[in-house]
Amino acid sequence: MILSYDENNIFAKLLRNEIPSIRVYEDENTVVFMDTMPQGIGHTLVIPRKPSRNLLDATPEILVTITKVVQKIAKATQKAFAADGITVMQFNEAASGQTVYHLHFHIIPRFDGIPLQHHADKIADKAELEKSAEKIRTALKII
Amino acid sequence: MILSYDENNIFAKLLRNEIPSIRVYEDENTVVFMDTMPQGIGHTLVIPRKPSRNLLDATPEILVTITKVVQKIAKATQKAFAADGITVMQFNEAASGQTVYHLHFHIIPRFDGIPLQHHADKIADKAELEKSAEKIRTALKII
Repeated sequence: MILSYDENNIFAKLLRNEIPSIRVYEDENTVVFMDTMPQGIGHTLVIPRKPSRNLLDATPEILVTITKVVQKIAKATQKAFAADGITVMQFNEAASGQTVYHLHFHIIPRFDGIPLQHHADKIADKAELEKSAEKIRTALKII
Repeated sequence: MILSYDENNIFAKLLRNEIPSIRVYEDENTVVFMDTMPQGIGHTLVIPRKPSRNLLDATPEILVTITKVVQKIAKATQKAFAADGITVMQFNEAASGQTVYHLHFHIIPRFDGIPLQHHADKIADKAELEKSAEKIRTALKII
């Protein structure tokens, strides 16, 4: 398995602000933004600023910093949506469902009795995404 | 959301060796063992020795140590089964599919064209699980 990194993947472009994103959190090492084709309300992606294709080639330093943010966003997302649960998923290579080859963690709020939706096949309403983003930003201040 | 820890959950019992497990790796902080109701061949679970219900109440120290092992096992699992991909999942609360309330990460090898199976409804053949475990143990020596 060859693990090369393409500097022109869409998350690399997003990090360089060449394409827009609705960000809910960022720090020196990490950026968190709304998934524009979400599997449910409040679905975010946590990515490191430094390049790595996925978990299989990430450095331990990247992993440690990103994991702490994954937890922070999971907690804030639970509060923001009064979610009954939180699903965290991380896909490596196409066979696992990875479509963008820059390491990312999915964080998805879950509600009793509502199954996980398939990845959306169209881009979600921008105003709705912005509303969800604002809920998470607010929750981040109180966790 | 109340996050209490039950000292008698099955992974707590497994850690105390009160119930058996097929382990592929363990160190001071972490234990990795075969999921006995797997979603595919080579499906393992990574758990910390210290108690935490899930990601929402885990300490940063636990997270950092477990994440490094998640990566190590993901890499070894890819090699062990010549997998086309690796799926990592971590569920928080019943709404997300969590059934045992001790923090755990699922690591599942994936193969092109084969969808993720539902959680098995019966315990897998012990000899098959042991064979898979041995493949992962062997791969851990060469990654």
